[in-house]
Amino acid sequence: MSEQPVGFFDSGLGGLTVLRASHELLPDESTVYLGDTARTPYGPKGKRTVLRYARECAEFLCQHDIKMLVVACNTASALALEELQQELSIPVIGTVERASQLAVEATASGRIGVIGTEATISSEVYDQALHDLDPGLMIQSTPCPLFVPVVEQGMFSGEIVDKLVELYLTSLKNLDIDTVVLGCTHYPLLKNAIQKFLGEGVNVVECSNAVAEHVGDVLAGRGELSSKAKGQQSYYVTDEVSQFKQLAALLMGGRQMEVVKVSSFSQV
Amino acid sequence: MSEQPVGFFDSGLGGLTVLRASHELLPDESTVYLGDTARTPYGPKGKRTVLRYARECAEFLCQHDIKMLVVACNTASALALEELQQELSIPVIGTVERASQLAVEATASGRIGVIGTEATISSEVYDQALHDLDPGLMIQSTPCPLFVPVVEQGMFSGEIVDKLVELYLTSLKNLDIDTVVLGCTHYPLLKNAIQKFLGEGVNVVECSNAVAEHVGDVLAGRGELSSKAKGQQSYYVTDEVSQFKQLAALLMGGRQMEVVKVSSFSQV
Repeated sequence: MSEQPVGFFDSGLGGLTVLRASHELLPDESTVYLGDTARTPYGPKGKRTVLRYARECAEFLCQHDIKMLVVACNTASALALEELQQELSIPVIGTVERASQLAVEATASGRIGVIGTEATISSEVYDQALHDLDPGLMIQSTPCPLFVPVVEQGMFSGEIVDKLVELYLTSLKNLDIDTVVLGCTHYPLLKNAIQKFLGEGVNVVECSNAVAEHVGDVLAGRGELSSKAKGQQSYYVTDEVSQFKQLAALLMGGRQMEVVKVSSFSQV
Repeated sequence: MSEQPVGFFDSGLGGLTVLRASHELLPDESTVYLGDTARTPYGPKGKRTVLRYARECAEFLCQHDIKMLVVACNTASALALEELQQELSIPVIGTVERASQLAVEATASGRIGVIGTEATISSEVYDQALHDLDPGLMIQSTPCPLFVPVVEQGMFSGEIVDKLVELYLTSLKNLDIDTVVLGCTHYPLLKNAIQKFLGEGVNVVECSNAVAEHVGDVLAGRGELSSKAKGQQSYYVTDEVSQFKQLAALLMGGRQMEVVKVSSFSQV
């Protein structure tokens, strides 16, 4: 058993979808969340830049004595997971593995769409993970570069969102996929618009519950689940707290939260 | 006379609208441009964060022995201009002063709209500059947070742009303004859509030519205009060069340019 917290980071708000699922599944675990809001978004940026940011986020969280790191950002999972796993002595998990498993379980036709940031899609991590599970799958990947900015603006529905969904997903829709993977932790916040556009017959797969289960599996496997009755939650951001706090409270079910701006994070 | 270059910085591509105007007006001047693409956008971020970024950009450009600094970013002009002017020994100009003068010259009704990033609009620098010039003006300011992300995506027209313009500018249109200030160096790239929505009767004021004139005025006043036949241009970015290079070449009239990723910029 271990009362150390689990660390989560994302470029901004998106990773909260994973954090929320973890809180629901593992309410006894303490967590530390870092949103790198001073440098958001990660998706349009290059591998070396994202890798550097991911290392700095991981280093910050490790200073909080975490027992496990969750890269709650698909872009960082795509571009930096292997390096973090090699460099850190604690377990590090990302989002791609479990999301891919869910998609393979969900599809009947074997025709799967993947949407994510430019960096995630260019990295082809989902194509590889899905083909490792089933080489016969037909996979169509499409970047949706403006989804993260609209979510970070708190714009989760409405005409602009619907137009962007149409712009980005029409080619996928025409390919007669039966499953789409939301390959970015921000995208579950646009799930209603995506489901409406693709139709009820398409499985919309998001990774948050699966990643929460993954956290539980890893901790249980190591005998490191918390034995306390209720965990503590801490939130940090690299830019000012105000906008993050407002939207985060909404996403986390309206609960009050204290959010601290990182001051010792000299590399931000 | 001085053959030292003039430095320009922006969070990304937007400042190129100012740079291009400067090249046209002052072709003999050498220039160094820095796009802080690893941390773009600046507009949704807080004062302390943007001030730190602006100082780092200025420091980088000063290492290139510039004779003058142009803050070719309205957000940084709004949040960091005074500090940079106090801290540097060379002339530092921003975008707000000349854009405000242009707007006051353009308006007949005295009803002016200002659009910009959240940070620029919240700072009220335009309200202040415009009221300093004419206390009787009616000024309506509106943030347009998604304009920078769409421009950085190379999306300058089309249905999404038109929808965003409608979303952000309807309230301005209903106020019967006769002049709108594009208070962000990215926005001239959306000028056609903005002009179309507001109608031909509305003056759409952008600052690029006026800032270029300001550069010429300052250099002439100090006897520091170049005497060479033709200036040299250098381009730096803080993220990978590829996407910037492609869009920048388009914005700069298709000319070939060498773009260098900043490596010694340890704070990025």
